[in-house]
Amino acid sequence: MELLKNKVLQEGKVLSGKVLKVDSFLNHQMDPVLMKEVGREFTRRFDGERITKVLTIESSGIAPGIMTALELNVPMIFARKQKSLTLREDIFVEKVFSFTKQETNEITVSRKFIQPGERVLIVDDFLANGEAAFGLARIVEQAGAEVAGIGIVIEKAFQPGRRVLKEAGYRVESLVRIGSLEDGQVTFAEDGE
Amino acid sequence: MELLKNKVLQEGKVLSGKVLKVDSFLNHQMDPVLMKEVGREFTRRFDGERITKVLTIESSGIAPGIMTALELNVPMIFARKQKSLTLREDIFVEKVFSFTKQETNEITVSRKFIQPGERVLIVDDFLANGEAAFGLARIVEQAGAEVAGIGIVIEKAFQPGRRVLKEAGYRVESLVRIGSLEDGQVTFAEDGE
Repeated sequence: MELLKNKVLQEGKVLSGKVLKVDSFLNHQMDPVLMKEVGREFTRRFDGERITKVLTIESSGIAPGIMTALELNVPMIFARKQKSLTLREDIFVEKVFSFTKQETNEITVSRKFIQPGERVLIVDDFLANGEAAFGLARIVEQAGAEVAGIGIVIEKAFQPGRRVLKEAGYRVESLVRIGSLEDGQVTFAEDGE
Repeated sequence: MELLKNKVLQEGKVLSGKVLKVDSFLNHQMDPVLMKEVGREFTRRFDGERITKVLTIESSGIAPGIMTALELNVPMIFARKQKSLTLREDIFVEKVFSFTKQETNEITVSRKFIQPGERVLIVDDFLANGEAAFGLARIVEQAGAEVAGIGIVIEKAFQPGRRVLKEAGYRVESLVRIGSLEDGQVTFAEDGE
């Protein structure tokens, strides 16, 4: 997605060989026109997948998630992150480890919002190790629903997230794939597999 | 806003005399078409205010915030909530007390995203005691910018938020005003003052 590549080149800040800061348009300040285009592009890529719901995770997934849900004309759910939790029967819970923050969070979704047989599109802002996307996928499957696909705004292709998710059988579509952040430079990876 | 009133009546759950649960369309699952209408309505109400930026707070403010920013064609920022924080020079910080959760959070915004002279529209999902909106307003003023107005999706008019914000000189526009949640029933308050 050219618009997004240009934004990454113009405004992304390479903080290390692994960390790209995009807080001017995706993670803190958000560009609503870009988010709308992100929603359109996911809708185009997952055309024909009969999606009934979009699932994302707070907080940075919500804007691309709601724009995708608007284009698809289906509801969106955002999973909540919590440090720890009293067990409750009315929610799905999965543990998700964050390599960046070196901590485990519990992510939760109310059982009433995902029904058996639904086809759920998972949307997230970043893909690195795939832990968050995997946690969301496990929640969809706990509900007896199907993962229609995983839509990622920015993939760090030099980390194992895509491989791990594909090996588990999920279709992953990333709008921008970063091949490397070495020497303070963003290099894009080829699209696709 | 009739569409929103109907949604509150059909799907809102009164949990107590003070708590209305709207997790099927605003706080957990979100209705994107409704959020788009919310954005349009705020844009209509704040027409002529020369707004340069929308400011909201994670997580439930993000969807109404981004839709409003899209209609206004300006960037959106979401403030982050944290339990406690090491002081940093590059961020604005305000303390916000939550009566619901009986805890104080620090809310933060990067200094680089609000410039002196900007006109900022604050958007949030709920107004009760006004603590969050006030914290966001203080951040705007720390930046040397102006609060163009405060747009609230659902106001609990039986709590003091609106009065407190108006006494401080802010313009408050709520799309739905709840007058009472007594006896498990939603009663709407009149629009306006």
